[in-house]
Amino acid sequence: MTHMLDQPIVYLNGSFVDKNKAFVSVMDRGFLFGDGIYEVFPSYSKHIFGLDLHLSRLQKGLKSIQIQNPYSLNEWKSIIHKVIELNLGDNNQAVYLQITRGCDRDRKHTYGDISPTVYVQSTGFDVRSKQELLKGAEVIIQDDIRWSQCNTKVTSLLPNIMYAQMAKNLEIEEVVLCRDGIVTECSSSNIFIVKNECLYTHPKGSYILPGITREVVMDCANACDIPVVEKEFSKNDLLEADEAWVTSSTREVVPITSVDGIKIGAGIVGEIWPLIYERYQEIKVKQ
Amino acid sequence: MTHMLDQPIVYLNGSFVDKNKAFVSVMDRGFLFGDGIYEVFPSYSKHIFGLDLHLSRLQKGLKSIQIQNPYSLNEWKSIIHKVIELNLGDNNQAVYLQITRGCDRDRKHTYGDISPTVYVQSTGFDVRSKQELLKGAEVIIQDDIRWSQCNTKVTSLLPNIMYAQMAKNLEIEEVVLCRDGIVTECSSSNIFIVKNECLYTHPKGSYILPGITREVVMDCANACDIPVVEKEFSKNDLLEADEAWVTSSTREVVPITSVDGIKIGAGIVGEIWPLIYERYQEIKVKQ
Repeated sequence: MTHMLDQPIVYLNGSFVDKNKAFVSVMDRGFLFGDGIYEVFPSYSKHIFGLDLHLSRLQKGLKSIQIQNPYSLNEWKSIIHKVIELNLGDNNQAVYLQITRGCDRDRKHTYGDISPTVYVQSTGFDVRSKQELLKGAEVIIQDDIRWSQCNTKVTSLLPNIMYAQMAKNLEIEEVVLCRDGIVTECSSSNIFIVKNECLYTHPKGSYILPGITREVVMDCANACDIPVVEKEFSKNDLLEADEAWVTSSTREVVPITSVDGIKIGAGIVGEIWPLIYERYQEIKVKQ
Repeated sequence: MTHMLDQPIVYLNGSFVDKNKAFVSVMDRGFLFGDGIYEVFPSYSKHIFGLDLHLSRLQKGLKSIQIQNPYSLNEWKSIIHKVIELNLGDNNQAVYLQITRGCDRDRKHTYGDISPTVYVQSTGFDVRSKQELLKGAEVIIQDDIRWSQCNTKVTSLLPNIMYAQMAKNLEIEEVVLCRDGIVTECSSSNIFIVKNECLYTHPKGSYILPGITREVVMDCANACDIPVVEKEFSKNDLLEADEAWVTSSTREVVPITSVDGIKIGAGIVGEIWPLIYERYQEIKVKQ
């Protein structure tokens, strides 16, 4: 069963419905408070990369804001596979799922015993070619103004979307965030630097989202015998790095060649990136 | 025209509809990203207290996150008065209005040229009696984990609602927030302390919401010849204060008699609070 891309089918609270007929009450706490948790993950020709890791992070996020996970692992998998199937699943698909705390009878900051709202969609996405990525990409650095529980993937995303929009307006790849002089991550991706053939990225904790792609990239580095250190680094370390990359589930691993208009390394994509890129391409359709 | 309280009429994008028939698309950026601005204000027997101040703050908030205000001041007033009128407007009503960036065709952090979603509701609320308030109220202190643009009243409210829920679970009035040793405000109210017959509250800036009730309370103090200083104070200053109050549009001015289980002053409501309370009650139905 195949649908036109302009009439996608989404999952909402137990039903598979046309996206343009998927509505939630104005009392939904997602709409009123950004009171929810989300995940995004890629499906390559119906193979979902890192699904267990994403569902595990989802579970942790729900627990941290005290929303009961409404489904078992198998129920999630069944819903997700069906949504992909219903939306030209043979293409590369980005699956998005969101759980909000649900609808109360009235708007109050506090909540009672309510049932979560579950929304799942799957949309085609383009993966940039190696040739395209080798052109390099630009970023700028801005203050990390976000809250201090960035390890929870919540739908209260206003600072992130403001910086994403800034990047769009400037026609650059990303905005890199800097908190008290330390580079944390980007508006919707993690960041790595290479210095003297060693890979560095901000340690896990409350200031970064523990990216699934971040983990995979570290695994790729290990497989390539490239040392990885999870350690804080400064804006200056970034500017003086030999290479820099941003990583996310749908961007994969994007080499950065300019930060605040200043060249990174020689201003062209470095020698380590292609090793990681090739390894990543191999495993993304296998694991 | 009067409706039952259990069938309230709300305003949504140009229409007055039954609240239980008010729905937004799952693509609404309020639902997906907490990408919106809101206001709450009281109406006492159809007299809206501080409406111009609330609409002015709304305008500033929209501007700061780059959403175009969809209505003129007069259009807002007309919608708000009609919503109050349609919902047993003779009672005390709390008006809630929310503007989100609107709906895109797909979920992307960035946005294009879309029209804002406007939602307005009005619900009855109980104002506590002076006798009730004189019993005093309890608060606890927690870390202020929020972002660093708290002066913008955004719907990305997850940290606020988590702390509001903590207060509810503990059956206390509020959670007071403390950033780097400084008391900022509470989960959904501002905070004042009295020391040696002088009133202190955190200065305006990016760490507190510039509360309308906060301003009114300062005006009340001026009218009562009580000095007011907008100055940072510490957790210790709060614990050693003679009096403490939390303020918000729907709570008005609530005297606090215990912080983290420790008595404030003599552990009973102090002598300055009744002066402010009486003045507030006078002007709330006039201004």
